[in-house]
Amino acid sequence: MRITVLTICPEQFGDFARTPLAARAQAAGRLSLEILDIRDFAPGSFRRVDDSPYGGGAGMVLRCQPVLDALASVRTPQSHTAVLAPIGKPYTQADAHRLAQEEHLILICGHYEGMDARIYEDADELLSIGDYVLTGGELPAMVIMDSVLRLVPGNMKEESAREESFEAGLLEYPQYTRPADFRGRKVPEVLLSGDHEAIRAWRRQEAHRVTRERRPDLLKTDRLEDPDHGLSGRKDGRI
Amino acid sequence: MRITVLTICPEQFGDFARTPLAARAQAAGRLSLEILDIRDFAPGSFRRVDDSPYGGGAGMVLRCQPVLDALASVRTPQSHTAVLAPIGKPYTQADAHRLAQEEHLILICGHYEGMDARIYEDADELLSIGDYVLTGGELPAMVIMDSVLRLVPGNMKEESAREESFEAGLLEYPQYTRPADFRGRKVPEVLLSGDHEAIRAWRRQEAHRVTRERRPDLLKTDRLEDPDHGLSGRKDGRI
Repeated sequence: MRITVLTICPEQFGDFARTPLAARAQAAGRLSLEILDIRDFAPGSFRRVDDSPYGGGAGMVLRCQPVLDALASVRTPQSHTAVLAPIGKPYTQADAHRLAQEEHLILICGHYEGMDARIYEDADELLSIGDYVLTGGELPAMVIMDSVLRLVPGNMKEESAREESFEAGLLEYPQYTRPADFRGRKVPEVLLSGDHEAIRAWRRQEAHRVTRERRPDLLKTDRLEDPDHGLSGRKDGRI
Repeated sequence: MRITVLTICPEQFGDFARTPLAARAQAAGRLSLEILDIRDFAPGSFRRVDDSPYGGGAGMVLRCQPVLDALASVRTPQSHTAVLAPIGKPYTQADAHRLAQEEHLILICGHYEGMDARIYEDADELLSIGDYVLTGGELPAMVIMDSVLRLVPGNMKEESAREESFEAGLLEYPQYTRPADFRGRKVPEVLLSGDHEAIRAWRRQEAHRVTRERRPDLLKTDRLEDPDHGLSGRKDGRI
């Protein structure tokens, strides 16, 4: 998989590229990560990438020309281009699965107070990682890359193919590890019983309880027709 | 403001600490940022922070002892402790405003396949930045810090105090900057008119249109009683 990030802050991606997930994928040839500096496509000695908004108002707006010329320099018919912007579609785990299938993913990071709306016309989609305001699209791009790379076959160990929040439309059941009694806080007895059927039933019940208590909105979807949901993990066979 | 991050991946926070927003806030004494390595609180030469889950299953679970001992080492009665976890409350701009008031914010990053559920009992709240699965809580901690630091007085220039997505329960209206005609794509005429009343009305109308088309869910709240919403910016007087 090839991922190209268009940004005016390329220096923010160093730590991300060195995370075990990204570094391992690159070393194994499963990821080719390019961080493209939008400033390199701005003419003149000032390399100006922003300007004040038409119609007045404070703040600066990212200009069309450097962004779209940067995009044109890397885009192919196989590319899928997403702009990270607060007005985008709320990004979910289903989108992560979808983007993990792409051959070449281009992520355009907005910045400053906003970007010229004409840039949006050239994107395949606009994505938002949540309903909050950030300095730029750089952290959202990393969030999307992390969630996508986890789903690319080979990037995660087989043993990690297990139940996770959102994969089955439910939050995850509670997890516990040693000791069984931590300063008076005890692990639920069923988990120590060795009764695999009972453990499986408890976990399913707990996944439903936690979801009902914390995120009843997730239960309003039609994703829960399979009684095994919450324990079944991913349905598409990928890890 | 003091922020302490508890993580098993402290090396992932270098770029974030050097972003203009975080660096400027630290230089001006408005932010004291500590990145605490949970491993430093795990005993033994292996400094083991994780173990296999009770009840079976693949993956590893973050242990209580190193996390809670790390927490105890920095927590005071003035601290507010949030665990980043997929089962947390969906984080929104309202939470950013709330956390920006805290004197000492402690962010605990989950990792691996999960964390021992007994850790949650010691937190003031659990937060999730979105409905997707990430490798760990490190990127979510940075997302929260970025959104919070933007709201701490002094960290953003006054001129940035303008309309933004989510602040008034609406997405932002489209922005444009020079040129008025970019390769045949034109800026809406009203923005070039100099008629400030007309521009103001157009922006309000567009903010409503964009929100209705892209995020009708945002309109279901009762936040829209003020007809000036979408142009009014923050209501609390902070930048």
